[in-house]
Amino acid sequence: MAKAQLILRVLAVSLLVFTASLVGFSTETKEVLLVRKKATFRDLNSLYVSVYVYSVAAGYNLLRLCNLSAWFERNSKWTNVGLVWAGLLLDQLAIYFTFGANTAALQASILAVTGQNEFQWMKLCNRFTRFCIQIGGAMICGYIACIVMILVTSFSAFNLFRLYSPKRFLLLKVI
Amino acid sequence: MAKAQLILRVLAVSLLVFTASLVGFSTETKEVLLVRKKATFRDLNSLYVSVYVYSVAAGYNLLRLCNLSAWFERNSKWTNVGLVWAGLLLDQLAIYFTFGANTAALQASILAVTGQNEFQWMKLCNRFTRFCIQIGGAMICGYIACIVMILVTSFSAFNLFRLYSPKRFLLLKVI
Repeated sequence: MAKAQLILRVLAVSLLVFTASLVGFSTETKEVLLVRKKATFRDLNSLYVSVYVYSVAAGYNLLRLCNLSAWFERNSKWTNVGLVWAGLLLDQLAIYFTFGANTAALQASILAVTGQNEFQWMKLCNRFTRFCIQIGGAMICGYIACIVMILVTSFSAFNLFRLYSPKRFLLLKVI
Repeated sequence: MAKAQLILRVLAVSLLVFTASLVGFSTETKEVLLVRKKATFRDLNSLYVSVYVYSVAAGYNLLRLCNLSAWFERNSKWTNVGLVWAGLLLDQLAIYFTFGANTAALQASILAVTGQNEFQWMKLCNRFTRFCIQIGGAMICGYIACIVMILVTSFSAFNLFRLYSPKRFLLLKVI
């Protein structure tokens, strides 16, 4: 169990770092009406925010990983249940923030692909094709990272909750 | 416990229905450059999608509610563990879809409020103020509905997982 969690967390960290760098380092320069324009993630607020969210989530998972591997080495039983609850809560927060940032970035990107005629918002991706494909790949990567993080939390929730008595609410069984 | 779940689900359904109708029925008509323009949720794809997602999520929770109240009446123990796992999975899917739709709608609305100068996307909310405030309220309501749904699933996950043995993985205790 602990081994599976370890592997999943390593996967989550690498996926998040990959996503953040994919969004952060993708640029494309094109001439639009004789003016050189450079497309970066700074052009869209939601992409800008999402890079930070990915990075923070990666850092958080890395921190948890150090902790986990320490646990794994000592092969110890969980002693402090409160800490595990706090970890679960933080995991959930990390997932929802990453998922939210990813979805917001996706929505903004979809608007950049399709435009919105009624608002006279014009399409942008017919010009910056490579940039847009790269961002699209990053979004998919971000969602996979979310799924991996959800798996990790499910494991830890399962491990925590099964310590409790099935008969009475919130009563810890003697381990 | 079952009573708390019941109340939370009723709250979730009513919040989701309220959000869907808030988004769905808010319109504002203004004259823009001598042309009468009507702002509805159909103008933004993400709002359009989110109304459907809220409605489906409300319907799903209503279905679960009927099931739950039947359980509550009979006051029976869970007999079929597989069904409970499936319910948990469906709950999670409902939460992530609602959260995602809500965040996407929020992102699109933020773009409508702030505009995006570099893309020549213009602001819209300086004209349709009442409409925008109503949509903003709906978003907040949608997030509260998400939190309520998260609480419900946490309860059901806790109730399911504590049936399992703390010693061996995926071994059901005798109830």
